[in-house]
Amino acid sequence: MSDFTNTGIMVNGLDSVIAANTELSHVFGSDGKLVYCGYDIYELAGHASFEEVAYLLWKGHLPNREELDELNALLGANRELPQAVIEGLRQVSKDANPMDALRTGVSLLGAQSGTRFEGTPTFEEAVELAARFPAIAAAFYRLRQGLEPVQGRADLNTAQNFLYMMHGEEPTEGEWRGLDGYLVLLADHGLNASTFTARVIASTNSDICSCLVGAIGALKGPAHGGAPAKVMEMLNEIGSLDNVESWLTDALDKGQRLMGFGHRVYKAEDPRAEVLRGMAKQASTPEFFMLSKETEDKALAMLNERKPGRKLYTNVEFYSAAVLGAVGLPGDFFPVAFAVSRSVGWSAHVLEQVQVNRLIRPASHYVGPVPDKKFVPIEER
Amino acid sequence: MSDFTNTGIMVNGLDSVIAANTELSHVFGSDGKLVYCGYDIYELAGHASFEEVAYLLWKGHLPNREELDELNALLGANRELPQAVIEGLRQVSKDANPMDALRTGVSLLGAQSGTRFEGTPTFEEAVELAARFPAIAAAFYRLRQGLEPVQGRADLNTAQNFLYMMHGEEPTEGEWRGLDGYLVLLADHGLNASTFTARVIASTNSDICSCLVGAIGALKGPAHGGAPAKVMEMLNEIGSLDNVESWLTDALDKGQRLMGFGHRVYKAEDPRAEVLRGMAKQASTPEFFMLSKETEDKALAMLNERKPGRKLYTNVEFYSAAVLGAVGLPGDFFPVAFAVSRSVGWSAHVLEQVQVNRLIRPASHYVGPVPDKKFVPIEER
Repeated sequence: MSDFTNTGIMVNGLDSVIAANTELSHVFGSDGKLVYCGYDIYELAGHASFEEVAYLLWKGHLPNREELDELNALLGANRELPQAVIEGLRQVSKDANPMDALRTGVSLLGAQSGTRFEGTPTFEEAVELAARFPAIAAAFYRLRQGLEPVQGRADLNTAQNFLYMMHGEEPTEGEWRGLDGYLVLLADHGLNASTFTARVIASTNSDICSCLVGAIGALKGPAHGGAPAKVMEMLNEIGSLDNVESWLTDALDKGQRLMGFGHRVYKAEDPRAEVLRGMAKQASTPEFFMLSKETEDKALAMLNERKPGRKLYTNVEFYSAAVLGAVGLPGDFFPVAFAVSRSVGWSAHVLEQVQVNRLIRPASHYVGPVPDKKFVPIEER
Repeated sequence: MSDFTNTGIMVNGLDSVIAANTELSHVFGSDGKLVYCGYDIYELAGHASFEEVAYLLWKGHLPNREELDELNALLGANRELPQAVIEGLRQVSKDANPMDALRTGVSLLGAQSGTRFEGTPTFEEAVELAARFPAIAAAFYRLRQGLEPVQGRADLNTAQNFLYMMHGEEPTEGEWRGLDGYLVLLADHGLNASTFTARVIASTNSDICSCLVGAIGALKGPAHGGAPAKVMEMLNEIGSLDNVESWLTDALDKGQRLMGFGHRVYKAEDPRAEVLRGMAKQASTPEFFMLSKETEDKALAMLNERKPGRKLYTNVEFYSAAVLGAVGLPGDFFPVAFAVSRSVGWSAHVLEQVQVNRLIRPASHYVGPVPDKKFVPIEER
């Protein structure tokens, strides 16, 4: 059938196909190294704030004091949600997946007059969205409990605001610093599936809200951002140290996939996992950290014993669960926290993609019936 | 910098990179041929109904009477919108882009409990979405005029329902048959950008609503589905036969891009353009058809004179405008009609993609600063 198909090589999953040039970040898979705009993630983790990293991704350099003040002022001016978005979120079912609520809230934000979000994406739109994401997520967190949303405050940073808007009281320094550290680590990661989604949508010259709404849908998938919640479920199911080995053996014997291990690109330890392990040790209870560590060690040993060729490592999701749980997020909000962080990478990629001005439109390989079928009326079928 | 970048070839726009095998449709660009599941589009146009074509794409064969009755019953059972979706649409600004309203309504539909749309996409979900798309679009059409939505009816087909829900009265046979013919032609088209978006999202194992919400955002882009409305604007600006040549000359002299000509894949006439030209001749007023034809002829002559090597042809958007205008849609609802049709192709591709079960995650080429930057505190920047 080669005469009516494209020539070329079919690459399932587009592994190793280069779909974009980017100055934003790179994953050095075999070295276990992640870089944002020239900075190794170890240079930024524990040193830069989420707002500084956001500025780095949007503008290509870390902000000086004046630039950071300007950014914080712009974020602060966008912490309050338009009333229509809150009213729309009331129509989301209380038992909906929080990612569906976030997707809907961001989409509705893009359907308001008076806000921007039409035409060529801008830096100001990216900043506004970074401020809106936690506000939308927190509003749904409260609405589903029958509580009224709490509006954000211009004097609090992103991590503080997220927790403040959820719980209605200021978080402790330990809590918001833990969340801030997490947000720094997850902000960008090359052409992952949600970022790629955002870039494909941007390539049609659509608006930035459409790009990020699509990206939220991709991040929601269990093969992408949906994993940390499942790590937490696993750890809760295991429950105690003496249950680790038998639980894991049982799961692997049943052919279950263990969440929190392995990655498409990393063939060494994910550096974010290492940072998060340290953060989890500080932030979570000693019991929970011990349970996590024991599960990690045993799971890695068993996985590498059963699949010796594959070299599996702990991925970013495994200790995300412990850190996010410790700062006060429920399990089904882990992917939302991921989206709050990654929204910054998404918008930076969108701003970069629109410079290219070339529609992303791959080819497909036709494997259907030979195209010579004749239409017959329904009575003759 | 090759030591810290991927090896491989960067393909801007992924032209000719094969990202999926598909049995659904294929565009034979150099022959000007479009095939759905083995049927040339000329076999289907004017013969098959939109519901038959939807069934073909979802199931791989045209339905017999019993199968079509079952499909129509399932569509009919989903014509009424959940009240929460209508309430959410009230929060969309009256002057919003109708694609933003559609994107928001579909997202909110996916955030309702009691509906499906969680987990592995199914045929039943695809059918439900095909019924919901026109209902959401029509509800916004009425709400923005201050009118209450009209619920769909189980005894009307998709084209009839769309126009009935918009205008509150049954369309003439000429109107709904015109729209039905349009819906058949636009239902699928290989790996176009919105379909590819839906497949990328599906590859993360996300839900079908997330896939279609992302696809709506991609289709909204002026480089994809946003063009027909601009054709209508152009024809309205030209206004009369004796103004065609001077208007086009002026536009081309200013370097403006004429909408409705040229396509990434077709290097011959788009077969859909030919079918739509015939439909436009029947459906629109003789004056408007003459204006369209004169504009087409003059534009092609001028474009091919100015860019002799490029061989530009009329694309699907040009006569979409005349057909959709004639059946009673305002210009800003043309992309919505496109989405109503393409929703069927999107869901069929989602159902096909989930069989592959492989995350679509391309690589990127890092062109940022050499990754040896050292973090310095803000005071020293």
